[in-house]
Amino acid sequence: MKQIYLDYAAATPIDPMVLKKMEPFFKRQFYNPSAVYLAGRAVRQALEDARASVAQNLGARPAEITFTAGATEANNLAVQGIMRAFPDSEVLVSAVEHESVLEPAKFFRHRQIPVSRQGIVDIAKLEKMISPRAVLVSVGLVNNEIGTVQPLRDIVKMLNRLRKLRGSQGLPLYLHSDAAQAPNYFDLHTARLGVDLLSINGGKIYGPKQSGALYIRGGVRLRPLILGGGQENGLRSGTENVASVIGLAAALDIAQEKRPAEAKRVAQLRQLFIETLQRTFPQAVVNGSPKHSAPHILSVTFPGIDNERLMMELDERGLQVATGSACNAGSDEPSHVLAAISLGAPAIRSSLRFSFGRQTSQNDIKYALKTLSQLLKN
Amino acid sequence: MKQIYLDYAAATPIDPMVLKKMEPFFKRQFYNPSAVYLAGRAVRQALEDARASVAQNLGARPAEITFTAGATEANNLAVQGIMRAFPDSEVLVSAVEHESVLEPAKFFRHRQIPVSRQGIVDIAKLEKMISPRAVLVSVGLVNNEIGTVQPLRDIVKMLNRLRKLRGSQGLPLYLHSDAAQAPNYFDLHTARLGVDLLSINGGKIYGPKQSGALYIRGGVRLRPLILGGGQENGLRSGTENVASVIGLAAALDIAQEKRPAEAKRVAQLRQLFIETLQRTFPQAVVNGSPKHSAPHILSVTFPGIDNERLMMELDERGLQVATGSACNAGSDEPSHVLAAISLGAPAIRSSLRFSFGRQTSQNDIKYALKTLSQLLKN
Repeated sequence: MKQIYLDYAAATPIDPMVLKKMEPFFKRQFYNPSAVYLAGRAVRQALEDARASVAQNLGARPAEITFTAGATEANNLAVQGIMRAFPDSEVLVSAVEHESVLEPAKFFRHRQIPVSRQGIVDIAKLEKMISPRAVLVSVGLVNNEIGTVQPLRDIVKMLNRLRKLRGSQGLPLYLHSDAAQAPNYFDLHTARLGVDLLSINGGKIYGPKQSGALYIRGGVRLRPLILGGGQENGLRSGTENVASVIGLAAALDIAQEKRPAEAKRVAQLRQLFIETLQRTFPQAVVNGSPKHSAPHILSVTFPGIDNERLMMELDERGLQVATGSACNAGSDEPSHVLAAISLGAPAIRSSLRFSFGRQTSQNDIKYALKTLSQLLKN
Repeated sequence: MKQIYLDYAAATPIDPMVLKKMEPFFKRQFYNPSAVYLAGRAVRQALEDARASVAQNLGARPAEITFTAGATEANNLAVQGIMRAFPDSEVLVSAVEHESVLEPAKFFRHRQIPVSRQGIVDIAKLEKMISPRAVLVSVGLVNNEIGTVQPLRDIVKMLNRLRKLRGSQGLPLYLHSDAAQAPNYFDLHTARLGVDLLSINGGKIYGPKQSGALYIRGGVRLRPLILGGGQENGLRSGTENVASVIGLAAALDIAQEKRPAEAKRVAQLRQLFIETLQRTFPQAVVNGSPKHSAPHILSVTFPGIDNERLMMELDERGLQVATGSACNAGSDEPSHVLAAISLGAPAIRSSLRFSFGRQTSQNDIKYALKTLSQLLKN
């Protein structure tokens, strides 16, 4: 049976070119990059070349890149690292952040920033919520469940006003953004984005799982999560996962190179999906923002339909889709993202996430919608 | 030029059989293990099979195994996780622990357990140091710089006496052991060892770098370091690094299978090294314990010789050795392990670590010693 994978927001296969670049570091160049003999130093050089490449794609300096085991660790390093560096301070996180931002925030003084029905952060409300002890604001670039893109530049403008008011005596006011879902389709130049910290994730950009990095703008103060030999400039100890880092760098490079063409192509697929869906099943509701959406994520509510059952039936017909974030798939808790955009429990239980990627074709979309409409008619 | 690698304690190449088992999970089976469709559940099953395999090798239940990104994270999870679960308690760590145990301990009330000149924990002193608020003792199974094996079973006997005295009202008194250097040569059955927590490291057993696991005996209370989607039973969030976990499980399985034969073979190589060295350079001093030593690690002090220079000269002649732990190689700080066994600064600056592994042959040892004696004669 034909298999059509529509869950690229949950996982991507490794690009064969990425895997090819990783392979020497499993075998011939297995040396510890901290070893001082020549073969060790060659591995160190490859690692630092990868860091420079990631930095370049983010418009950053190599010293501003800390490699982590995935975006979850990067998000934890950002939130826990900063909150531990500034005791008794406060963190504000948007209500639609990934659990790896929300959960660490809960261990500190924290507030959740409300979002509109389209999932967009309310900047006026956010501004009012920022007290003098707020040190960190965390707003993801692309939401992983509904695809909404946040107005980071407007947030930065507002933060810059507040920073000016604080003056040099006040606390810093950092902006972190989880960009795990962004690199295939968005510019990640950190200065243009205006962020102080940015998390990226290899596992969503055709690189290895649990590869990731945190951009930490020079001067930002934070404490490491994982201590030891002092690797990653003291911010993430542990013998570097060389192959994984090489893979992340290659994956990011390819993603950014393919970005303009893929953003356009995948946005057309999403549009085709929406248009066909609205013809065949007009009751369906597309969640998120029509105007500010990532091209690859589409959240749809099918009123009256049980999403678990529909997902299983689609699976039986070769279509792999998600009921929400894979991270929550095992749990029975309703999606906090859909709840934050004011969907009620019945609507949440009737929602599916379709997400597209490099191997998704127009024919896949057509086949998916044919299958979907057959199931929905029964 | 012939290259002889004598730094297996710093890094091991991936076993080709291990890599072969990992490969499908980079490509065909790239799915997120939390995905609910069949292909995702097959990946989940492979992950859980790997967990069961690791558990079996440790004499544990699968639920007692938490996969981490390497032993450094596992050690941090053990120390930070327990110390955060028991505020105001105390941790005791041996003075020769790896930095990934020592450094996190420093953030809490902690004491260092002194060791003998052979690097062995002084159990009588340890017993006296354990106050009613001590909740964790961390003593590594095999020291990574001098190879000393700790008398864990005697420590457990002493701890059991103290536990009895505490009764059911007192704090628990957990024993953690960093076994990163152990699986190729030692039995890791956790009940026989008597440990409550045990860290293992794929990167030292011919598995992938930054693969690792923490055995956490059922009932042990600790807090997660990395929060988010709730993977690993809530103890280590982040989309599982499936290929890496599969690799770790396969590597541990092979290591434990080869263990009896390799322990004997490598111990003979070490003995050959020592005997030849003592004939050709009788001033050389072997550090560590003659009786309680891992077969693969040999720390030698060459009085009057600059270790950095000797290491470089050996490298030029194709011999890759370490001046100490690779984790410290970049820094100028003298080894805390050699300092703890009462070596003075000049002796520390004259010490090299040779470490052996699966590809090391008798001829390698002979060639290494010929080269070494030529250099030392000049």
